[in-house]
Amino acid sequence: MNGSQLVPLAQGSHADGVLSQPRWPAYARAMTIDWRLSQRGLTYTDSAIRALTKRLANVTGVVSFAGGMPSPETFPVDAFSSAFDTVMQQGGRAALQYGPSDGYAPLRAWIAETLSTPGAPIVAEQVVVTSGSQQGLDLVGKLMFDSGDAVAVETPTYLGALQAFVQYDPRVVPIACDDGGIVPAQLQESLRRAGVARGAGKLLYTIPTFQNPTGRTMSLARRMALVEACARESLPIVEDDPYGGLDYEGRTHTTLLSLDPECVVYLGSFSKILSPGIRLGYIVAPVAMARKLEMAKQASDLHTSSLMQRVVHEIVKDGFLSKHLDDCRRLYRDNAAVMHTALERHLSGVAHWVRAEGGMFLWLQLPDGMDAAAMLEKAIGEGVAYVPGSPFYAAAPQANTMRLCFSTASASQIEQGIGALGRVIGGAR
Amino acid sequence: MNGSQLVPLAQGSHADGVLSQPRWPAYARAMTIDWRLSQRGLTYTDSAIRALTKRLANVTGVVSFAGGMPSPETFPVDAFSSAFDTVMQQGGRAALQYGPSDGYAPLRAWIAETLSTPGAPIVAEQVVVTSGSQQGLDLVGKLMFDSGDAVAVETPTYLGALQAFVQYDPRVVPIACDDGGIVPAQLQESLRRAGVARGAGKLLYTIPTFQNPTGRTMSLARRMALVEACARESLPIVEDDPYGGLDYEGRTHTTLLSLDPECVVYLGSFSKILSPGIRLGYIVAPVAMARKLEMAKQASDLHTSSLMQRVVHEIVKDGFLSKHLDDCRRLYRDNAAVMHTALERHLSGVAHWVRAEGGMFLWLQLPDGMDAAAMLEKAIGEGVAYVPGSPFYAAAPQANTMRLCFSTASASQIEQGIGALGRVIGGAR
Repeated sequence: MNGSQLVPLAQGSHADGVLSQPRWPAYARAMTIDWRLSQRGLTYTDSAIRALTKRLANVTGVVSFAGGMPSPETFPVDAFSSAFDTVMQQGGRAALQYGPSDGYAPLRAWIAETLSTPGAPIVAEQVVVTSGSQQGLDLVGKLMFDSGDAVAVETPTYLGALQAFVQYDPRVVPIACDDGGIVPAQLQESLRRAGVARGAGKLLYTIPTFQNPTGRTMSLARRMALVEACARESLPIVEDDPYGGLDYEGRTHTTLLSLDPECVVYLGSFSKILSPGIRLGYIVAPVAMARKLEMAKQASDLHTSSLMQRVVHEIVKDGFLSKHLDDCRRLYRDNAAVMHTALERHLSGVAHWVRAEGGMFLWLQLPDGMDAAAMLEKAIGEGVAYVPGSPFYAAAPQANTMRLCFSTASASQIEQGIGALGRVIGGAR
Repeated sequence: MNGSQLVPLAQGSHADGVLSQPRWPAYARAMTIDWRLSQRGLTYTDSAIRALTKRLANVTGVVSFAGGMPSPETFPVDAFSSAFDTVMQQGGRAALQYGPSDGYAPLRAWIAETLSTPGAPIVAEQVVVTSGSQQGLDLVGKLMFDSGDAVAVETPTYLGALQAFVQYDPRVVPIACDDGGIVPAQLQESLRRAGVARGAGKLLYTIPTFQNPTGRTMSLARRMALVEACARESLPIVEDDPYGGLDYEGRTHTTLLSLDPECVVYLGSFSKILSPGIRLGYIVAPVAMARKLEMAKQASDLHTSSLMQRVVHEIVKDGFLSKHLDDCRRLYRDNAAVMHTALERHLSGVAHWVRAEGGMFLWLQLPDGMDAAAMLEKAIGEGVAYVPGSPFYAAAPQANTMRLCFSTASASQIEQGIGALGRVIGGAR
């Protein structure tokens, strides 16, 4: 990255010993060496969302639907403080010491119990605690992808998953989707069209419930059909489920994991229901896969914070989440309703969207020919920001789409922002 | 991993909707799919140390020098509690929210200021906070290694670095070392002997200060000569420095980073001086490299815990470490002295070691022909455990070596353990 330059060693003897100050600063400053990155290293670039986030950090008076963050109002600060005190009092030194790579045993047991269903019990041996679900995606990529391996994804799909997977150079194959998520009947055709033979795909990555970026949810019938279609293709499934707890009616959605525990690696997260800042998630996998994930985890960062695992276990172990999730759902449901009403007022008949039933996102499809990315600067000028949809597509991006996140704005901001959006879209027609 | 088996879809209609229980458990349980791992995934195996740790967890009455953990007595529980309270009171919601991938700005600034020397100022833009130094090693491997790339390492070297690097399939080239660390005059020859031409090596990985596993430290003269030798080879340096703060006399060792900031990526850690359980470390790199590391970090786990970064910054920002490090050093110095004296009593003239001047480790070389791994079960039977040295060698392991960690045992345990070791080694001659 720098020009390579070699400067002759300065003359003079130097005592062989320990010093508190370097004696050789002039020498040091003149030497530079090329840092020759790997092919992987060369591909890392700033994402569109990242660049947008930096851009928005420097403007004021803009209602941003661009974030993907949970509302800080939902963060249970008091519960964290109380749990931290308890953990430190009951075993502060153990909480500050190294821990096992697969995670804190009581937390793993709690996760297993929570995810178990009568038909599909989960055992703690299947659970590996991760530093957020993003690390789960990274570990899956590490463990599964050789260069060129086919990974099937939704259309559109979660950008962070693409970023994690791309590090291992797979071939990303988009599967046909509609407002109800993946169309199971088209799985085979989508794979064949991309030249992926039966049994040749490495895995399917999906967020079946309140997907990021679209907010859409797969029905139980689709889930069952998808599991069957994947079995016919010998295609394992990676199910990412950060939003499953955020159904506005409090409904529990049947996980793909519970339908087929041997064929699904499930990624769970505390980010959207407790706190994203603590970076705590988990993987549930068939036992043999879990052991491999544990070893990959060890090579990657040894383990996830012993302290944070204990604190979160202390918070959740006695049923805290059932009441807390009610509060989260109420907030997001109200925000979603305000956005839906505002969209009906300002963009009915112009844009297409599906009313959110859970989660934090809504996906807006503009008339054909419109370009949400091209429109963004004008929108910011009008006082509203969003994420253009194109980066979420593995191929053939649809430029006339955008993601709206309604988790952090107030009702009046949402009304104001959608009004601005209506003016920008209306003006672009 | 499992036999692939496809069971026909059960007949019957299923309502398209959301249910709280899966309807299809029998179907689920019968379906299994092969999880076809990547080449990388196939290479993950249990390490020798890991297997030993599990073995030792099930025995009692054994003095273990096998760990590599800091003493829990050094963990500042009260400081953590007080800092946690302050962080939650001053901005609990910000601490629980997503944060920047390169880390919490005030902590990055503190790290930069702490590492700056008059000749080599460090700026915050060079710092990327990581989930422990192990993640630093993983990110460096990601960013730098294509399959077959040459990485130079010490003889022996840190096992965890080998585990991190091996994920990216480099060719590991051992460099000649002696009791004073890397022999800079032999760098070129070691590289050529391995067929690595000038300018062809990707990087040199080294722990110059109180190395794991040997405890040895490079003199300033050697450090300067090493920086020069690496410059002649156009070989960037990755300097791993978890033990630099643990000099028993409180001396500061000149970092390679301060000698040549443009050619060194420096890995720092709070694990050995505050707590390993919180998983907090950092990378200091040339600015362009730091931006690449930030992007790799984002793809890998988004960022390190916002909360823990704030807590640690709150602990260290006003000089806490200077007194605290005195306490850590005193404990380890006393333990090292007890071990040295016990070794002189029981193994003088039999084994070779260098008296520790800092850190947590001592490296024992037994007479030629002895095999520390073969001797381990007998040692455990005698009531003492250690880590055989072989796994720390990238090539040509020396079977007659072992790592002794004296950080967690009491004085009487150390005397007892070394006595047992003396009997085992004496009996094997």
